[in-house]
Amino acid sequence: MTAPLSTLTLPSGDVELRRAELADLPAIVGLLANDPLGSSRETEVEEADLQPYLDAFRAVDDDPAQLLVVVSAEHDVVGTMQLSFIPGLARGGALRAQIEGVRVDEPYRSQGLGGAMFEWAIAEAQRRGCALVQLTTDKARTDAHRFYERLGFIASHEGLKLELRPSR
Amino acid sequence: MTAPLSTLTLPSGDVELRRAELADLPAIVGLLANDPLGSSRETEVEEADLQPYLDAFRAVDDDPAQLLVVVSAEHDVVGTMQLSFIPGLARGGALRAQIEGVRVDEPYRSQGLGGAMFEWAIAEAQRRGCALVQLTTDKARTDAHRFYERLGFIASHEGLKLELRPSR
Repeated sequence: MTAPLSTLTLPSGDVELRRAELADLPAIVGLLANDPLGSSRETEVEEADLQPYLDAFRAVDDDPAQLLVVVSAEHDVVGTMQLSFIPGLARGGALRAQIEGVRVDEPYRSQGLGGAMFEWAIAEAQRRGCALVQLTTDKARTDAHRFYERLGFIASHEGLKLELRPSR
Repeated sequence: MTAPLSTLTLPSGDVELRRAELADLPAIVGLLANDPLGSSRETEVEEADLQPYLDAFRAVDDDPAQLLVVVSAEHDVVGTMQLSFIPGLARGGALRAQIEGVRVDEPYRSQGLGGAMFEWAIAEAQRRGCALVQLTTDKARTDAHRFYERLGFIASHEGLKLELRPSR
């Protein structure tokens, strides 16, 4: 087990935020699938279907600009998110942190875990010298918008997506 | 001069799309600044102020997941955009391409250059195995929304930004 990056204190007790490791992969995919929007995007995962996720995990884990974290309570993974650190010329050559794939397990919602995860992510972005934290959230997630706005995010942009058909 | 990645045919003649090199940096920063929204974000660039941009250019250029391109007509840089290739577990372990910092020089707008740049970018994303192309655009850029929707992008998400104050 990797050393925790942070201990988050919730009403129900302390949980640990740490870098994801390979053994966490089925739990992370489970969290991604167990979501009103995710269930249409992630199919039920049989052992044999894990290969694309394994490949993606390796790509994320090998890239120093990516940081996939999980939150564990006892031995259960109860939350996950991915931070991407993206260099660029805009905004005075600002490094930006992007957050994707945020999921909190059902029993841990409305307990402050999401907020604590974001406070940690924003502090980590600041520590790495980012000038901006950004994310997109599906317009169907109206609760999420209020959550992000309470954290100080401004919904200044449209988030546009174009799905590509596999060419192979 | 690096070899072009593509030749784009416009009514006014052919232009070349190629990987940005260090010598393009002042022109790219000029394009970023010469923009209704960018002018408040990018200050006038004196020679001495280029350092943060130089650092950012190096970070982008050294990262195989980043591709900063320019479009050159004769010897002028008339367009730029940055592609970021982001691995992740969501959507079945999909690689996604993200496009940031798109700018077309004033005289080249409404000539199809933006569309040709995006067609190239979408094809490049497909070639690299991306399942999704994504971008955010300021809600104030209403013309841009129509442009992206014509290309097939769906404005399904809110784009949220949180600016960080420098801690150093």
